[in-house]
Formats: sequence, structure tokens, C-alpha cells
Amino acid sequence: MSTDRSPLAPDGFPELPSIAGVTPRVARARYKDWDRCDLTFVTLDPGTTVAGVTTQSKCPSPEVEWCRRALPLGSARALVVNAGNSNAFTGNRGREAVETIAAQVARRLDCEPSDVFVSSTGVIGVPLPIDKAEAGLVAAFEASPCNWEDAAATIMTTDTFAKAATTSAVVDGKTVNLVGIIKGSGMIAPDMATMLGFIFTDAAVEPGFLQHALNDANKASFSCITVDSDTSTSDTVLAFATGAADNAPLEDDDSDGADAFRAALSDLCLQLAHLVVRDGEGASKFIRIDVEGAESDESAHRVALSIANSPLVKTAIAGEDANWGRIVMAVGKAGEPAERDKLAIRFGTTQVARDGLAVEGYDEAPVAAHLKGSEIEIGVDLGLGDGRATVWTCDLTHGYISINADYRS
Amino acid sequence: MSTDRSPLAPDGFPELPSIAGVTPRVARARYKDWDRCDLTFVTLDPGTTVAGVTTQSKCPSPEVEWCRRALPLGSARALVVNAGNSNAFTGNRGREAVETIAAQVARRLDCEPSDVFVSSTGVIGVPLPIDKAEAGLVAAFEASPCNWEDAAATIMTTDTFAKAATTSAVVDGKTVNLVGIIKGSGMIAPDMATMLGFIFTDAAVEPGFLQHALNDANKASFSCITVDSDTSTSDTVLAFATGAADNAPLEDDDSDGADAFRAALSDLCLQLAHLVVRDGEGASKFIRIDVEGAESDESAHRVALSIANSPLVKTAIAGEDANWGRIVMAVGKAGEPAERDKLAIRFGTTQVARDGLAVEGYDEAPVAAHLKGSEIEIGVDLGLGDGRATVWTCDLTHGYISINADYRS
Repeated sequence: MSTDRSPLAPDGFPELPSIAGVTPRVARARYKDWDRCDLTFVTLDPGTTVAGVTTQSKCPSPEVEWCRRALPLGSARALVVNAGNSNAFTGNRGREAVETIAAQVARRLDCEPSDVFVSSTGVIGVPLPIDKAEAGLVAAFEASPCNWEDAAATIMTTDTFAKAATTSAVVDGKTVNLVGIIKGSGMIAPDMATMLGFIFTDAAVEPGFLQHALNDANKASFSCITVDSDTSTSDTVLAFATGAADNAPLEDDDSDGADAFRAALSDLCLQLAHLVVRDGEGASKFIRIDVEGAESDESAHRVALSIANSPLVKTAIAGEDANWGRIVMAVGKAGEPAERDKLAIRFGTTQVARDGLAVEGYDEAPVAAHLKGSEIEIGVDLGLGDGRATVWTCDLTHGYISINADYRS
Repeated sequence: MSTDRSPLAPDGFPELPSIAGVTPRVARARYKDWDRCDLTFVTLDPGTTVAGVTTQSKCPSPEVEWCRRALPLGSARALVVNAGNSNAFTGNRGREAVETIAAQVARRLDCEPSDVFVSSTGVIGVPLPIDKAEAGLVAAFEASPCNWEDAAATIMTTDTFAKAATTSAVVDGKTVNLVGIIKGSGMIAPDMATMLGFIFTDAAVEPGFLQHALNDANKASFSCITVDSDTSTSDTVLAFATGAADNAPLEDDDSDGADAFRAALSDLCLQLAHLVVRDGEGASKFIRIDVEGAESDESAHRVALSIANSPLVKTAIAGEDANWGRIVMAVGKAGEPAERDKLAIRFGTTQVARDGLAVEGYDEAPVAAHLKGSEIEIGVDLGLGDGRATVWTCDLTHGYISINADYRS
């Protein structure tokens, strides 16, 4: 497994406020043969609301199914995250493991099992050992509360750095804080790199509005990143709102502070999503892809993903190669409306192609200089309409192959 | 560029019959700074019919557009293949290059320009130098006819071995021969690895029926292989039938020998398609993926491609890792009907998962032994219906990264 910190990682772990009503703890369940905390247990004060988005996979983990069933009820008292075993594709034994965890926590907190949210990440196909989960929970119940950095580190698998972000907003005259922690280094590498994100706020938010705001924030953040095009069986983002800030609860878009809260949530989700790309397996470049001039925003999004997921585009960027022909290729294969002779492409601020051919007197020097950096921008204008989208990804390097092929699981 | 012969290559170049009515020649146009033949010129006797399939890219090369316009006319007198420059995304100058080549050959052969088929492969975005093409053609006109191996080698770019195959069929009491040559080592690597395939037969075949037979053969061969999921702007397969075997021309499925000819053509296409996978960039394993139990054949095909294109599946095979969880992931992300608890997976002849979980007493030893070989089989049963499909691919290794990232174009 990779151990070096990603070259794209931020300098350090950010300063984060505590969130009133949220108490994280960590413990050693030892789901793998390692000596590290791998069970995160977060208690949430009574009255906490919840929203969530989960993987589109047709083969979701029992944890994902459990969360999907509990989310419509809108209330949460605890979150349990297991690292080292995803419990996916494990039949009835996997379902029983989730139910056992939820029941054990519900007894401890005197709440409903459906108030307990469970996520797991790690190897597929091995049932989560119930005895280890139970003993880990007992240890967590007795543990002292931990800080955000410990919680963010405990949910990691192949991640090379602990990831978290914070924002705030003024709602109903009160400052509310949001904190998120996230893991994932393939966006989506089912062996050990599912994306799990957890957001906590002291704002008071009705669960329906929280879900609405999270759906929109997700669409412009987590849905716009890709490391390797592979979608996990366990991807999950949950948002918890304790209400401890005592604002008048946000109910809909007309509530006082609704816009500010949505902006803060969207900003937080984008920060967290970018951190996942920055820890992309083997990544050496952080790549932003802007597509405009598409027939619709959805079409622009699909073209941007076609570029972002192309192994030839990703290897060209890794090689610092101004190979814009590969971008033409990726636009052409996307299956979306496109006309070769209207297509324009830029790297950074330098236009390289326009109207279906290289620009007159194209000078590769500024493009080569841009590609030597670690923050790469690709712009594509399809010249057809007003649709636009942005997607973020990383390059494809020997590091990705080493992480995913050079070992036996 | 890669120079070592692929470990999956056949032992040597096959014995091939000459095809009456087909005369290949090669010459040095020097499209790149190299001293090798890079222009292939094949003359076809009067009366030769033609059919073809081309890339689905929305940004096709002018060669592809030229062939698409000429194909409905159904007749061919020559084929010109340029290696080292794809001439794609080059605007009017690219179109002029193709028109100039076709006109020059048409004057030489006293035929219509539309009887001249042109394909080019290599870097995108650089107009094909017309002066080099013209001089190369003059040299080719004067050259002695060459053998198939020279022709197959001359159309190569990043390929590590020359690729050809042959079949025969009895049609109308006469034995007809088919020979195909092909290049491509990403199926589809637009920098230098477009897939171009050319099939020649002495059978007499009406162009409509030839197209019909080629469409079907393509669907079960070239459309069922993938190296890296990237689709070229220039992919082209053309089939030429000289009629020199003097059989009663094949007109439709009821013609005497139609079935035999179609079987031979399909066999030839599959042989050629497999050769491309065996020269996949960086490939160390030849992988066959069988999907059955899908709701339809089309659905099975899409699930098989989702597995074949998954970087995590491909790196697991490269690492000889029996990581069947990644296959669950790839099925789940395909977006096709699937039910986790009906899914079954095998490696080689060993069942590893059934009914949504690992088989009772799963023994990894025979799977590990299978994965150590160079011919890998993955079987997936979705348990839903009768749809089935087979796709062939290769693994994803450091070699792919080296070929595509470790140089500047």
C-alpha cells in the first residue's frame, strides 16, 4: 500500500471548530492485521437531522441499503464508520453485521436502530467480523472524545492524508459552523478506497431541506470528480445537523439564511471533493476540465467526464505532454453532440485549437510551461449552445499501477 | 516508443496465400523522421467491390469521411495507407491532402477518385504533408509488389508485431481465400495507435452483401475488443472482394456459399481483433470476459465492456490478484439491470461467488494458478435472463503508462 503523502496534499490538517452536539470517538476494532484505530463512533445530540446521498451501483453494500432505509426518517443519534472491510457482497451475514451494530448502539444511546448510521470501507466479499465490531464499539463507548483529525484519520484506508474542511454561514442572525471529513483515494476503488464523506453542522435544518441542499451540493461537487471512472459499492455522503446553534430551523429556500447555508454547504462539499482528487491514487497533477458551448449542462458534464476518464488524456498530462489530439479524441468518443469544425481547446489560458484545427502559429512553449505545474486547466468549447460543466480529476501514473497491481490482496 | 515484441504475440508471421486481383506495394514517404516504409499502396483489379465500417467518433478524420462517402458506391481500385500521421483535426488542409492522394492515384489507374480508399494513422492535429504523400506515391507506383508481411509491417505505428490472418471458404464450388492485415495496439490510442484493418478476398461478392456480412462480423469481433476504452478518430475496417475466384457473385444470404463466406469472414475478423488485443499497449495478459444471464445480449455486452474497461479490474489481473470484488464493482457501475444477490462470478473454471456472496469454502489456489497464466477467463452470470456476450481485453500495466506518459510527443 502507498504510504507517501500525496504531492498534491495541503500543507497540513486545517483548524476546525468543534460542532456543538457532535462528539466523535475512535477505537481499535482491528478489522485488518494492523495496530491503528479503524472504528469511528460519533454521537449526535437528540434532535439531530440527517440527509444523505449514496452510490448508484446496482451492487450496493448492506451499509448503503441500511442508510437508504433510515434516511427518509430524517433523524440521527449516531454514526459508526468501519475501515478495512467494506462488508459489501457478503449476503445475509453482511446484513446481520449492520443490524447488530445498529442495535448495540441503539441500546447504548436508548434510541431507535434507525437513528444509527453505519458505513464501512475496505475489501469486498469478506463479511464484517461481528465480534470485532462489537468489541470495537465497547471500546469506543468507553473512549474519551477525540478531535477531528483523529476521526478523519480513522476512516482512512489507502488515503495518504487525513481530509477535512470547514465553512460557516450566518443563519437567522446566528453563525452556524459546518465541518466535513472525507476519505477516498481512488474516488472509487472498491478494494480499499471507497469514498465516504460525513458533514456535521450545528445549524437547525429540517431533514427535507437538508436533503434538498445536499442533493444540489453533491451534484456540483462529488458528482464532478473522478479518479479512475470506477464506482464503489459503498460510496456514501451523510450530512448531520444538530440544531445546537439554535437558529429558527431552515425549512425551505425561503427561510432566513437558507441561501447562506446552501452556499456554505456547497463550498464545503467542493472543498472535500477536491481533497479526494488531491489524494487520487498515484496522482501528480490536479486537473480542472471546463466544458462550455454544449447543447445542455448535462451534455457538457458527460463530455467533461469523457475527457477526465480517458486513460490517454490522463497519461498525457502525467507526461506533461501537450497532446491536445487526445482531447479531440475524448470529445469525439463521448457520444454527445459535437461538431469537429466548431471545436476549440485550451490548456491554461493558451488557446491551442479552434474551428477544428490547430490555431495559426501555435506556440507550444506556454502550454509546456503550464503542464509542468501541478494544477492543470483544460478548456473545451463545443461551439453549439450554452451548456457548461466543470469536472476535476487527476493524472494516471505509474503510482496508480503500483498501488493497484503490484500487490496481492 | 515500445520496441519489445508483445509477450502475447504469436510465434511468427502466418503463411498467407496471395489474393488474385490484389497487388500490395510499400514505399518510404517519411511522414516522421524515420527510415522505414510508411506508405502502403494496394491496387485492386477492376470489378473489385468494397464494404467498410468506421469509427463512431464525432470528430472523425477526413480519411474516415472520405471512405464513408465512397463506400455506398461499392467499387474500389486502390487503397492507400499512411502511417505516422493521422491527418485528423486538420481542417481544410487535411481534406485537401486526402483529395490530392485520391486524384493522383485515380490518374495513375485511370479510375474515379471515389475508387481510391485512404486511411491514415498517427499523430492528431498535424496536416498530412502533401508533398511527402505525392513523392511517396510516385515511389510506390514504381516499386515491385511486396508480400503481406511487408504490407502489414508498413501500416504499423506503436504496434510491436505485424498482424495478419487468413481463412477460406467454398463458395459456389470454388475455394475462395480471405486475407486480412491489421494494426492497432491501443485499440484506440489516437496519438499513434488507431485501429486500421484491411481484408482482401478473391471471392465475387456484391457490395451490399459484403457490407451486410462485414457489419455482422464487426459486431462480434472488432466491437468486442477494448484495450483502454479510448475510441480513435480514425478507426477503419475495409473489406475488398476482387471476384477473381470467379464464383457466382454472392448477392444475399440465399446465395450458394453465403453461409460459408460469412463464417470465414467472421472468423477472420475475430482472428484480427484478437491480434490487436495481443498487442495492447503494455499488455501481459489476454483476457476473455463472458457475461450471461443478462436481460438482453446488448445489456450483457455493456456489462462485459464495463468489466473490460475498469482500470481496477485490469490492474488486478496484471497483479495476478484474485480480486473478484472489483468485478462486482464493475457490474454494479455498468448501469445495466443487475441484482446483487443473483450474481455469480468465475475465474477460469473455478466459481468464486454465487448468489451475492463468496462460494462456501472458496479455495483461491486454482484461481491463483489460473491468473499466473497469460490467457485469463472471467465469467459472470447475472441470473436474470438469456442475454449473453463475450468481450476480449488485456491488462493494465506499467507498460501502458510508459508508452503513453513517459515521453513527450
